[in-house]
Amino acid sequence: MKVFLATAGGFCFGVKRAINMAYETAESVSKDVYTLGPLIHNPQVVKELEASGVKMIDRIEASKGHPLIIRSHGITLDEMTKVKDAKVNCIDATCPFVKKAQDYVKKLSDDGYGVLILGEKNHPEVKGLMSYARGDVIVISSPGDIDEAGIKKRIGVVAQTTQTIENLQKIIKKLIPLVSELRVYNTICNTTNVRQKESVELARRVDCMIVVGGYNSANTNRLAKMCKKILKKTYHIEIPDEIDPEWLKGAETVGVTAGASTPPYIIEKVVKRIENLGSGL
Amino acid sequence: MKVFLATAGGFCFGVKRAINMAYETAESVSKDVYTLGPLIHNPQVVKELEASGVKMIDRIEASKGHPLIIRSHGITLDEMTKVKDAKVNCIDATCPFVKKAQDYVKKLSDDGYGVLILGEKNHPEVKGLMSYARGDVIVISSPGDIDEAGIKKRIGVVAQTTQTIENLQKIIKKLIPLVSELRVYNTICNTTNVRQKESVELARRVDCMIVVGGYNSANTNRLAKMCKKILKKTYHIEIPDEIDPEWLKGAETVGVTAGASTPPYIIEKVVKRIENLGSGL
Repeated sequence: MKVFLATAGGFCFGVKRAINMAYETAESVSKDVYTLGPLIHNPQVVKELEASGVKMIDRIEASKGHPLIIRSHGITLDEMTKVKDAKVNCIDATCPFVKKAQDYVKKLSDDGYGVLILGEKNHPEVKGLMSYARGDVIVISSPGDIDEAGIKKRIGVVAQTTQTIENLQKIIKKLIPLVSELRVYNTICNTTNVRQKESVELARRVDCMIVVGGYNSANTNRLAKMCKKILKKTYHIEIPDEIDPEWLKGAETVGVTAGASTPPYIIEKVVKRIENLGSGL
Repeated sequence: MKVFLATAGGFCFGVKRAINMAYETAESVSKDVYTLGPLIHNPQVVKELEASGVKMIDRIEASKGHPLIIRSHGITLDEMTKVKDAKVNCIDATCPFVKKAQDYVKKLSDDGYGVLILGEKNHPEVKGLMSYARGDVIVISSPGDIDEAGIKKRIGVVAQTTQTIENLQKIIKKLIPLVSELRVYNTICNTTNVRQKESVELARRVDCMIVVGGYNSANTNRLAKMCKKILKKTYHIEIPDEIDPEWLKGAETVGVTAGASTPPYIIEKVVKRIENLGSGL
């Protein structure tokens, strides 16, 4: 059995940066540091961080006297104001690409455009983005969600950084006949783009596809969905032990890809386990 | 034989306005008035205008001492400057929708965007639009014309007012992955849109389709092309006499539509001739 690993899988720039910032902060102080919600969407990494003194809290007030790290997905403008008012020692690990998207939402809103965000309403990144629009803001996740009556004549579009280009293209296509002016910020992270493309191409070539990453990770879920469309034998796992030997039966080639918040050591273990199971089958 | 007439065919707002302005000017002065190039793209109307003292010239200098009417498609910024410098009595009949598109090109250019115009390079409207961009300006007429290497990161798009929404959608789809910011002014005139849609739907329902309008009219040519895609038996004519009775043989239903610069009386004569030929066949 041959295992092919997507080179663009695993930690992205923003995730690596946030993790480094958290460890560095934890090392530099002699007490616990806190993150508001999970720093990244990978339970295994969050657990390890906890062991190193980087602990998750849900309320800003709980961080009193401790450094507070802002998660990679960012927080809402309201929360950011509260953090500033609370005068806690804040380390902002918001991904710079997410920060840029927040700035664009604010700019569009300030300039009087109706803001349309392509993303998942309940994702922390999207909640953060939404909060930077003062008035009209619509969140949709597919072209079918567009309510024509609710579309203003001047619309600005910003995408959750982990969305697909294809989805953005479909949305824009539907918007063009409805508006007189359209402003699109292509805020889809290039890493996301490259990872999705490479993974889909890999799925086309192999007999079985394993997608590794947190179940709460939007980009991993999307990756698994995209690969599943191409290859029915696609499986989303968080840790190597979840691989069912049955999945690999008859497979001569197996592809492995991973979401942006999946650490390298988990990916390596996944590859090793597939190879072991392959040689034993 | 039944004849169906597209209600959205014929004179559009901008054309009607330009013709009225020309006749009113001719009536109010006791000498010839001039237009720089044909006022609209319909040879029959231009000929009638000429009989009423509205004559076509090619050079601004030739208008000395006579009112000069600016054609509905607009002129270039350079020409406009020359007109102003020449201190001629200028009546600007540029379609307000074209004027708006010119303003958008200028604004995009001033704001540092690369300007992409969707239209026909040699059409006077497009030549006018192009002239309002200071630096980078690209004209394309289909997605295949896009040279990826020449696309700036921040692109603004303006369309010739008579383009199709479908073409604009295709262009934008291709641009999205190439840029970080995209600004689209949907400058396609709604009349164009409605006319194209109605004509295409009509072409679907009838046995033969007649498209009436100047051979030099971009929007009529486009209309004919769109209908021909649906119905092979589509014919572009300028005047009723051009209808070949052979075209109508076996047709139970005939659709008639007309470009934006086709006068009502020609459309009426076309319908009448089809009915006469139909009853005689």
